[in-house]
Amino acid sequence: MAKGKQATVDDAAALLRQAGSVLLLCHQKPDGDTLGSGLALRLALCALGKQVRIACPDGFPERYAFLYPEGFVPEQQPEFDPELVVAVDVADPKLLGAVGVQWDGRIGLCIDHHPSNTQYAEWLLLDPDAASTTQIMAKVIPQMGVPLTREIALPLYTGLATDTGCFRYSNVTPAALRLGADLIETGIDSFMVNKRMFETKSRGRVELEQLVLGTLEYHYGGQFAIAVIASADAERTGIPEADMDGIPALPRQIEGVEIAATLKQKGPEQFRVSMRGSARFNVSEICGRLGGGGHPRAAGCTLNGTLAAVKSRLVEVVAPDFERLGNG
Amino acid sequence: MAKGKQATVDDAAALLRQAGSVLLLCHQKPDGDTLGSGLALRLALCALGKQVRIACPDGFPERYAFLYPEGFVPEQQPEFDPELVVAVDVADPKLLGAVGVQWDGRIGLCIDHHPSNTQYAEWLLLDPDAASTTQIMAKVIPQMGVPLTREIALPLYTGLATDTGCFRYSNVTPAALRLGADLIETGIDSFMVNKRMFETKSRGRVELEQLVLGTLEYHYGGQFAIAVIASADAERTGIPEADMDGIPALPRQIEGVEIAATLKQKGPEQFRVSMRGSARFNVSEICGRLGGGGHPRAAGCTLNGTLAAVKSRLVEVVAPDFERLGNG
Repeated sequence: MAKGKQATVDDAAALLRQAGSVLLLCHQKPDGDTLGSGLALRLALCALGKQVRIACPDGFPERYAFLYPEGFVPEQQPEFDPELVVAVDVADPKLLGAVGVQWDGRIGLCIDHHPSNTQYAEWLLLDPDAASTTQIMAKVIPQMGVPLTREIALPLYTGLATDTGCFRYSNVTPAALRLGADLIETGIDSFMVNKRMFETKSRGRVELEQLVLGTLEYHYGGQFAIAVIASADAERTGIPEADMDGIPALPRQIEGVEIAATLKQKGPEQFRVSMRGSARFNVSEICGRLGGGGHPRAAGCTLNGTLAAVKSRLVEVVAPDFERLGNG
Repeated sequence: MAKGKQATVDDAAALLRQAGSVLLLCHQKPDGDTLGSGLALRLALCALGKQVRIACPDGFPERYAFLYPEGFVPEQQPEFDPELVVAVDVADPKLLGAVGVQWDGRIGLCIDHHPSNTQYAEWLLLDPDAASTTQIMAKVIPQMGVPLTREIALPLYTGLATDTGCFRYSNVTPAALRLGADLIETGIDSFMVNKRMFETKSRGRVELEQLVLGTLEYHYGGQFAIAVIASADAERTGIPEADMDGIPALPRQIEGVEIAATLKQKGPEQFRVSMRGSARFNVSEICGRLGGGGHPRAAGCTLNGTLAAVKSRLVEVVAPDFERLGNG
């Protein structure tokens, strides 16, 4: 199978219309965008009378239960050998986990907005300017001849809202806001989505945030902040690892902090470091010096040693970056 | 002077065009909407060659410095006897403090979106469906014959974003999102606004939030939460009262909490209670029973007594509301 052929919205819609049966694949650690894209496309394909199944390597989290149609039981979906396998919001087949191994080389279409997409599918509809994959899906579905009903608008809105921090991040464009307006106009309860996604925190999460903020220490005149998620604290609050999303971003919100490192304890002398930086730094490069990597604004690495030793190592390793800035 | 005549957008634009000199009044404890409305209208009036002065009873906070045009010094504005006095986003003349006393009975036009507006001005342009007063201003300014330039779009966007929690609250409409799109299209740095307004917190603020969350206690199976801002904690973090906005909303974010009461210590045995409730309760009515009042979802009262006594009083006073719900 030839890979990475560039698909237009028309191409993608035609492929989907032609297939009698479709398997939709979401990425692991599913978020609002991969689930929203998959569930919206599932509804559109059902409206066209296709056989459809949607799969997610980690299952379907309770957090997004409001998106699952009444009577939707993942295990009770139709079984069939799909004519077309479609990956949504999946930048790399590695993110499909065990599901990906099974369908390796058979993914006919990928719809995605990550510029880092590895072009693993036969056809790729990629729009890196889209704030979310659901923003692309909002073009594909009408092109398939299916109107954006309220049922379809709900998952599309959820993907758009979650990937933009509710229209707050730098990826928000006029087109993203106008799509939000169009989707709300179908009559969806967008406020309920916003409240669930952005306002409600579990009691354990609040306790953990409080404990983590209590560990904050500052270096380089308050420009470098270190916070710790100690095993004992994580256990005490009883919140699962999956619910710790966003905690490493907290110290970066503090005025004056340019780089924040959050140390999640993995063992008595092992820490997973999540680093977040401002546009003036490249934390991917910094974590690279410590055997890790990532993106320029968000990266990570794993360090062994006592907490004190790991902290010292971090303070040391960022020193040239702050010095460079002082001289710049 | 007759009061409370209903003005259309055309009426308001005509009044503003006819006046040779205009004084703009913002409300006390100024927020992004009153300042954004006033500063955008100021630019529009300047563009028409009018004499303009803008006043705010509490001055112009540093937090909104990015909105003040270069060289704008509030104390160095032109002095004149205005032909027209305009209040923006001011629901009640009480909110004009000392400035209001001076211009009492002389406010010719009020532009506002608060349904509670007391109709104190000669002409009132009121649109309670607008998410922000800047959303109304975005209609008035073009009607005055002034295009929405990038300079004017920045304060308009700031008011829209701050009054909607960056497009997150229940007041967000398709029209609000489309206005956001139009304003961003002028080339403003909306991400910078979002970051300043919604992401950056002072170190003291983070410390205070942490201390307040540490005081959380729950009643009625986790549905009623009480948090305390102790004088000692507030002093220790050194943050001014003006920077404590939003803290009473924190406990309401916790899953399962229907009513949250945050007790700000005013004296050894005096507490200012800020109450926030879900749609299932009327906290204005609850605070009314304690000699206070406010809105159905956000209200307050002042209670005297030891901390323990005040807490008991609160737990007692909400009992019938939770019982009613249990029986409902």
